[in-house]
Amino acid sequence: MNVYGKHYRTIWLKEDDPQTVQIIEQRLLPHQFVIEDLTTVDEVARAIKEMHVRGAGLIGATAGYGMYIAALHAPRDSTTAFMTSLTAAGETLKATRPTAVNLEWAVERQLEAIEAAGDDIEEKIETALRMAQTIADEDAEFCRRIGEHGKAIIQEISQRKQGETVNILTHCNAGWLAFVDYGTATAPIYAAFNEGIKVHVWVDETRPQNQGARLTAWELNQHGVPHTVIADNVGGHLMQHGLVDMVITGTDRTLYTGDVANKIGTYLKALAAKDNDVPFYVALPSSTFDWKMRDGVKEIPIEQRDATEVKYMGGLHEGEIKSVLLTPADSPAANYAFDVTPARLVTGLITERGICAASEEGILGLYPEKKQ
Amino acid sequence: MNVYGKHYRTIWLKEDDPQTVQIIEQRLLPHQFVIEDLTTVDEVARAIKEMHVRGAGLIGATAGYGMYIAALHAPRDSTTAFMTSLTAAGETLKATRPTAVNLEWAVERQLEAIEAAGDDIEEKIETALRMAQTIADEDAEFCRRIGEHGKAIIQEISQRKQGETVNILTHCNAGWLAFVDYGTATAPIYAAFNEGIKVHVWVDETRPQNQGARLTAWELNQHGVPHTVIADNVGGHLMQHGLVDMVITGTDRTLYTGDVANKIGTYLKALAAKDNDVPFYVALPSSTFDWKMRDGVKEIPIEQRDATEVKYMGGLHEGEIKSVLLTPADSPAANYAFDVTPARLVTGLITERGICAASEEGILGLYPEKKQ
Repeated sequence: MNVYGKHYRTIWLKEDDPQTVQIIEQRLLPHQFVIEDLTTVDEVARAIKEMHVRGAGLIGATAGYGMYIAALHAPRDSTTAFMTSLTAAGETLKATRPTAVNLEWAVERQLEAIEAAGDDIEEKIETALRMAQTIADEDAEFCRRIGEHGKAIIQEISQRKQGETVNILTHCNAGWLAFVDYGTATAPIYAAFNEGIKVHVWVDETRPQNQGARLTAWELNQHGVPHTVIADNVGGHLMQHGLVDMVITGTDRTLYTGDVANKIGTYLKALAAKDNDVPFYVALPSSTFDWKMRDGVKEIPIEQRDATEVKYMGGLHEGEIKSVLLTPADSPAANYAFDVTPARLVTGLITERGICAASEEGILGLYPEKKQ
Repeated sequence: MNVYGKHYRTIWLKEDDPQTVQIIEQRLLPHQFVIEDLTTVDEVARAIKEMHVRGAGLIGATAGYGMYIAALHAPRDSTTAFMTSLTAAGETLKATRPTAVNLEWAVERQLEAIEAAGDDIEEKIETALRMAQTIADEDAEFCRRIGEHGKAIIQEISQRKQGETVNILTHCNAGWLAFVDYGTATAPIYAAFNEGIKVHVWVDETRPQNQGARLTAWELNQHGVPHTVIADNVGGHLMQHGLVDMVITGTDRTLYTGDVANKIGTYLKALAAKDNDVPFYVALPSSTFDWKMRDGVKEIPIEQRDATEVKYMGGLHEGEIKSVLLTPADSPAANYAFDVTPARLVTGLITERGICAASEEGILGLYPEKKQ
């Protein structure tokens, strides 16, 4: 993806120093573009925990590179000592965001590969490096494919509108900043834009953490995609007036029955889309499917975060990032981070294998190996 | 209503100086409680336009006092010159906020009364003063009655829940700060609370201007009513989990067919209420009815305000009110101030005459004199 005209991923090895991993310090966006060096497992763990990096795909990729860094610094006197050190590093990384599925998945995948790489330590380190790159490459490739499949939907709307601008609403940031490249919800938008299809994105600011206003707006801006930031309250009105042709969001967990957990507020946009016959799509790589739970509203645990995220807001004031209090100091606030959109409100799921209905039949049709 | 234990209205004549109108500078709440003097029509117009005062009832009352101030300063050489000046002042005031129906209503009511007051200029000025006070008194009295009627609904839910806390969600500020006293959406809540019924209010922060987080939270806090501030994205999730017993909002214009214009985002909460069988009430004095338009989504003009209200947010930083930039500096933003909730989503209207269905039949049943 482009930043000031240069191609970036969200994580990479430093040029001329392949023992250093580099990331974008996302907490400073959109106001400051700062690249951060990670050279120890502790630095990697802190970057995940304190959300210098965030988003399902990117958390997994960062953990993958973290295991490579762990391998670089592990004791080399014996295979056992080396592997013990790596297992401990894996525990440290997994403990940073214990609910993030991709984190555990990436660590386990690394440990298996390194274990299987024989007794030569150099060979194990090489394996860790290759696996870190594979995890990142796969993430980017799955997102690229989601983009191709989703582009077809945008193309169809564009044709129906005889080439007029296709207006797409998105909530939160399921953009390339949340993955290694392309993103999920944004991938079809970038793919369509790059082919010259006229698109415009309504960017929900996404309170309380403003991932839309801060991150989605920034990455669309960097790529030159026309967009407009709106308060989360606005989408329904836009749909009533024919100003939204489709909605695409990401998801933090989608059940094999089609229920979608995503950033708080997604459900409200899905209701409005249904009420106004606007197609509502959810884009995800298959790693985000939950193959066990059946009923999203009843079963998916919803994280409650600190009230200060609601009561205070950060932004740029005279060149510095400052936090301001929005409410009376002693008014309590609640901070539910996700909600569940029932499958009945979802038009379709855009995956790396193609598009399917948000239903058990649709999903298992694309992933038949998951049938029991 | 109480502020630091003292009774206030939101607008009044200055003690010892009846040619000066005083208001609370609401843009500084909840952080600073500042009283502002208004002595010219331009000051009154600016106070409405720049939202030192806001809310259907208070805008009407302010326009009423604005016409009195206009009368004080109009040329006295002839009745014609006097009335021409007043008509021009009325146009200035009406042009400040396009969606608020009370504005036009208050200006027209003043012009009719002043016109009818004979040829003596002093008598006309006296009439303008009396009418300004009548508009304000009526507003307070109507809100008090709305409180009594609405209290019955809360009481019924409280009884059904065997005295457990009744959870009420409200959007924006239709509190006493939006009227002269009591408020509309809040009036039933205050009335129930004052009678010892256990209530708790979910306060939508109401982006972009945060009238919920700033004003509703502040006035509930001042009155001691238990409440919790939430991002606008949260209400649907709460309803899915049985944490909302009813919704009450205000309205800026309600058609005689039952379509409700209110702060942007109201429609989304009404959709969620419908989807979860949560009763959705709208509280309003009859001055907020529009007796002409039939179709809210098609006909009601929706004010678009400046993008800076979306891109920047004000709040308290180290004891001072500061504004911070939330988005990339060059990302555009759109700022639709209201949306329309179709009558089919509204459980009932709470008016000064009682509760009715949000339909032509229900409304004209309470206001038979409006039948044509």
